[in-house]
Amino acid sequence: MKWLLVFALGLPLFASHEASNEGSSKAAIQAMLNRQAEAWNRGDLSGFVVYYAPLCTLVGSEITETTRSRVLAHYREKYPSRDAMGKLAFSKITIHVLDAGIATVTAYWHLERSVQSGGPVGGVFSLVCQLSAGSWQIVLDHTSRNE
Amino acid sequence: MKWLLVFALGLPLFASHEASNEGSSKAAIQAMLNRQAEAWNRGDLSGFVVYYAPLCTLVGSEITETTRSRVLAHYREKYPSRDAMGKLAFSKITIHVLDAGIATVTAYWHLERSVQSGGPVGGVFSLVCQLSAGSWQIVLDHTSRNE
Repeated sequence: MKWLLVFALGLPLFASHEASNEGSSKAAIQAMLNRQAEAWNRGDLSGFVVYYAPLCTLVGSEITETTRSRVLAHYREKYPSRDAMGKLAFSKITIHVLDAGIATVTAYWHLERSVQSGGPVGGVFSLVCQLSAGSWQIVLDHTSRNE
Repeated sequence: MKWLLVFALGLPLFASHEASNEGSSKAAIQAMLNRQAEAWNRGDLSGFVVYYAPLCTLVGSEITETTRSRVLAHYREKYPSRDAMGKLAFSKITIHVLDAGIATVTAYWHLERSVQSGGPVGGVFSLVCQLSAGSWQIVLDHTSRNE
């Protein structure tokens, strides 16, 4: 009888465990994105880039295989002041958990800022995130800017 | 003695097996990209889109959760003739195998075509590929066009 019970109960339990893993991965990635935007909006670029993997790929108009410290240098150069950084918001975030350790994120980004600081700007981005020692890290960031 | 031998020989063998898996994944993905470009260049859009997963995400200036058949419709609308399709080439392809079943691709794309058909155009793209029933499929395609 025992194996029948295992068979009868095991599959739904397994499925629910999988779904809960996916749910907790999505929640952890959503929390990472929230913390990233919060860091940006308090002018903390070091806090913003801490979610990039030590070795990662940035795609914009060019492709750069880079390091977290160079990502920081890139953002410091591109956004030299709080005014240039503006206020960052993400919207329509979609997270696909591909397996227990890899997920994709797509979303729209918008920087609200004064005309003097370059004006509002935005676009879309896609991320590939990988779980490393219990934390999700961005291994690929492809960000496009709308015209 | 036996476990010592296993210990001494096992790790390098395991490492070499992993490296060979990564190598064969990269070779399979490179072959997929070659076949895609070949399909494009003979005007075979159905052959081009067969490498997309049945459900996939397209990112351009917008984000679209879509199906392979809608990807085909999108390309047919955007490239209505052989002249509009031009000649497609990929360059500086980088493949990162994240685990046995998931990989990323980044590369530059270029369409060589006459001024009458819109002129040459190009940019960068990033793909997320997932192994499904022994074949690599594109689950996310983010393509940017240079100005």
